[in-house]
Amino acid sequence: MAIDTRGEKRIMYYQRRITGLQQRLRRRRLDGIIIARPENRRYLSGYKGGDHGIEESSGLLIVPAKGAAHLVTDFRFELQAQQETKDIMVHVHRGGVIQLLGQLLPDLSIKRFGFESDYTLYFFAEKLKKELRPKGISPVPVQGLVEQMRIVKDEQEIALIKKSVQLNEAVFSSVFNELGAYRTERELAAAIESAMVRQGAEKPSFSTIVASGRNGALPHAVPGTDRIEQNGSLTIDMGLILNGYCSDMTRNFVPQEPDSTYRKLHRIVRKAQLAGIAAVKAGARCCDIDRAARAVIKDAGYGNYFGHSLGHGVGLAVHEEPRVSAKSRRKLKAGMVITIEPGIYIPDWGGIRLENMVVVTSDGCENLNEDTTMLDI
Amino acid sequence: MAIDTRGEKRIMYYQRRITGLQQRLRRRRLDGIIIARPENRRYLSGYKGGDHGIEESSGLLIVPAKGAAHLVTDFRFELQAQQETKDIMVHVHRGGVIQLLGQLLPDLSIKRFGFESDYTLYFFAEKLKKELRPKGISPVPVQGLVEQMRIVKDEQEIALIKKSVQLNEAVFSSVFNELGAYRTERELAAAIESAMVRQGAEKPSFSTIVASGRNGALPHAVPGTDRIEQNGSLTIDMGLILNGYCSDMTRNFVPQEPDSTYRKLHRIVRKAQLAGIAAVKAGARCCDIDRAARAVIKDAGYGNYFGHSLGHGVGLAVHEEPRVSAKSRRKLKAGMVITIEPGIYIPDWGGIRLENMVVVTSDGCENLNEDTTMLDI
Repeated sequence: MAIDTRGEKRIMYYQRRITGLQQRLRRRRLDGIIIARPENRRYLSGYKGGDHGIEESSGLLIVPAKGAAHLVTDFRFELQAQQETKDIMVHVHRGGVIQLLGQLLPDLSIKRFGFESDYTLYFFAEKLKKELRPKGISPVPVQGLVEQMRIVKDEQEIALIKKSVQLNEAVFSSVFNELGAYRTERELAAAIESAMVRQGAEKPSFSTIVASGRNGALPHAVPGTDRIEQNGSLTIDMGLILNGYCSDMTRNFVPQEPDSTYRKLHRIVRKAQLAGIAAVKAGARCCDIDRAARAVIKDAGYGNYFGHSLGHGVGLAVHEEPRVSAKSRRKLKAGMVITIEPGIYIPDWGGIRLENMVVVTSDGCENLNEDTTMLDI
Repeated sequence: MAIDTRGEKRIMYYQRRITGLQQRLRRRRLDGIIIARPENRRYLSGYKGGDHGIEESSGLLIVPAKGAAHLVTDFRFELQAQQETKDIMVHVHRGGVIQLLGQLLPDLSIKRFGFESDYTLYFFAEKLKKELRPKGISPVPVQGLVEQMRIVKDEQEIALIKKSVQLNEAVFSSVFNELGAYRTERELAAAIESAMVRQGAEKPSFSTIVASGRNGALPHAVPGTDRIEQNGSLTIDMGLILNGYCSDMTRNFVPQEPDSTYRKLHRIVRKAQLAGIAAVKAGARCCDIDRAARAVIKDAGYGNYFGHSLGHGVGLAVHEEPRVSAKSRRKLKAGMVITIEPGIYIPDWGGIRLENMVVVTSDGCENLNEDTTMLDI
C-alpha cells in the first residue's frame, strides 16, 4: 500500500503512543505488555482487526519496554495486519498463541510482562502463568494503562470524533425525513444501520435501539416487531464508527402529536440535560455533573425513574472512561469527550432519554450535536 | 405477557435443561453455578438479553444445585428479564453485582460455586475470590458445563436451525438477484444485513464478510470501500440469528465470467467440501473429517493455502463446539450441527471458500443448504 503524507503523519501518532506506553511500562518495572483489547491495539498500532468476541482474538500486540512492537495473530489476519501497520513485526502462530509467546518473549528479553486483566479471560491468564512461569517469565495483571492514555483526546482524535458525530446526525436526518416508511422498530433500526454504512460508516458502534411506546421503559430495549406507535414516545439510540471513532446519541420524540404527559416529562429530561452540560468543565468532578442533572429529575419527583448514570466517555470505544456517575470522583480534563444522557423510564408508559456528546474545555464544553427534535422549553 | 401453549412447551425445555445442569453440578459437588455467557443464559432460561461485550453483562444467571434459578441484572434489563423468563427470580443490583452475590449466595446455601472460567474476566474472578472467600464462599473455575449440553441439538433446536438457514438462503437469493445494484463491498454487506432484519432475523450472527478480488485472500476480510470487481472472485460469508439460533454460510463466485484459474480452484475447493461432507457421520472423528477435505486441497498442490480448520459447530452461538479441526479427536454424534468450509487463499489473487451447514446423523449427514452458485463439477 502506498503511504501518503497523511498516512505518514498517522504513523507518527502511533510511534508517539508506543513511546508513551513504554515510559509507563518502565515506571512499573515491566519488560513489556501484551495488548488484547481491540481498541487499545488499534490506538497503538493502527491495526483494525476486529475480534469476534473476546474469545476469538484477531491478534495480540506485544509492546516491549524498549524497541519495536510485535503483533501475534493467526493465518486469517496476516495480510490485513501487514497492510495496516508499519514498523511492527507480524508473527503468525500455528501451534497456539501461548506456544509462540513462549518463544517470542525470551527473544525480546521480556521476563516480567503485563496483561490486561480486564480484557483477559480467567482460563487464558491461568494458562499463561502455567506455561510461561517454568521458563522464568512472569505475567502480571495490569489495568487501564492504555485506557488512561486514551481518555484525553488529541486534536486529531477530536476532529475524527466530530466527523463521526456529524455523520451520525446526517444518518438520523435522512431516516427521520422518511420515518413513515418504517412500520416496526426492527425495520427502522435496520434502516438506520444500513444508512450508516451506505453513508460511509465502518459499522454501527452498538446495536441501534429503537423503542416505541411502552417499550421505551426499557433503557436498552431490543428493537422488536411491534409497530411504531404514532402517539407514543419513540426512543432512537444510535451511533456509528468512522475512522475507528465512535458516536453515540439518543433522540426522543412522538411521531404525531405529543400529549401533555410527554411534554412535561420531555421538558424535565431536557432541563436535566442542560443542567448536566452547564456543569461540565475541566476540573469538575464526574459525580458533580451527574448530580447537577439528577437533581432536576429528583426535584420534579421522578428520581426513582432514572436508574442509570448520566454519561460515559466516547472514543475508539463507545463506552469508555470517564464514567459520569454518582460514584466517580474523577475530575474532568480538557479534551475528554463524554455523553450527557439523562432519562425517565416509566413502566407501562414508556421512556424518554436525551443524549448528546460534548468535548470538555478549560471553561466549559463544546456540544457536538445539533438536536432539532427537542421540544422548545 | 400471555403465554400460549408453544410458550409453555418452551418453558418445559428450560426446566429440563436446568435439571440436567443441576445433575452435573451435584456430580461435581458444586452448590451452584454462575452463568455469564449469553448463549448459555438463554439456553437455560429463555432470557434474550445481549451483552455489549463481555464487560457489560446484561445479567448473571445463578443456578443452585437444587431449586429455582435466579437472575441478577441491572436496572436497564429488569423489565426485559421479567418478561422473557418464568419461574426465575429477577434481582436488580444497585451497589455492584458482587455485593448482591454476597447476600444472595448465602441465602441460597451456596458455598462452593462454579464460574465459567472461559467467559469470566481475570480481574472479575479475582474480585469474586477476594470478596466472597471471607464469607466462606468459594468460587471454582469450570469450563464447558453448559456448552457440552448444547453440543447435541434436540429436534426443536434442529427445526429452529433449519429455519435460520432457510432465511439466510432467502436473504442471499434476494440480494444475489440484484447484485448489480451494489458498487462496493461495504454497500453489499450493508444490504445483506438490512435484508436479514427486514426479512425477520433478530440480527446478523457475525459481521458479514464481502471480499472482492484480491481482498478474498483475507479469510476474515472486512468489507471496504473497494468497488466490487466484476471479473474477480467474490466471497460472501453471512449468517443470521432467528429465534436465537444461528446460520452461517459462504458463497463464492465471479459476478461476470470466471476464468480458467478460478474454475480450477473452485472445483478443488468444492471437491474438498464434498469429501468432507462425505466423511461426516456419527462416530467419525473431527480430525478425520478435516483430513478428508484437506487431502483434496493438498493433493492438488494448495495445502499451504488452506490455513484454517475445516469447520465448527453452530447453534445458539455461531462458533461453538465441536471444532472440526486437525487437532480434535472428538467423535461426532447424531444431532450435532457443523459447518464444512474448506478454502484456498492466494495472496494478490484472491480466495475461494465454500461453506455449508450439515446435521450429523447416525449414518451420514443432512446438508442444510441449497447452493445454486456452485460451478458444476
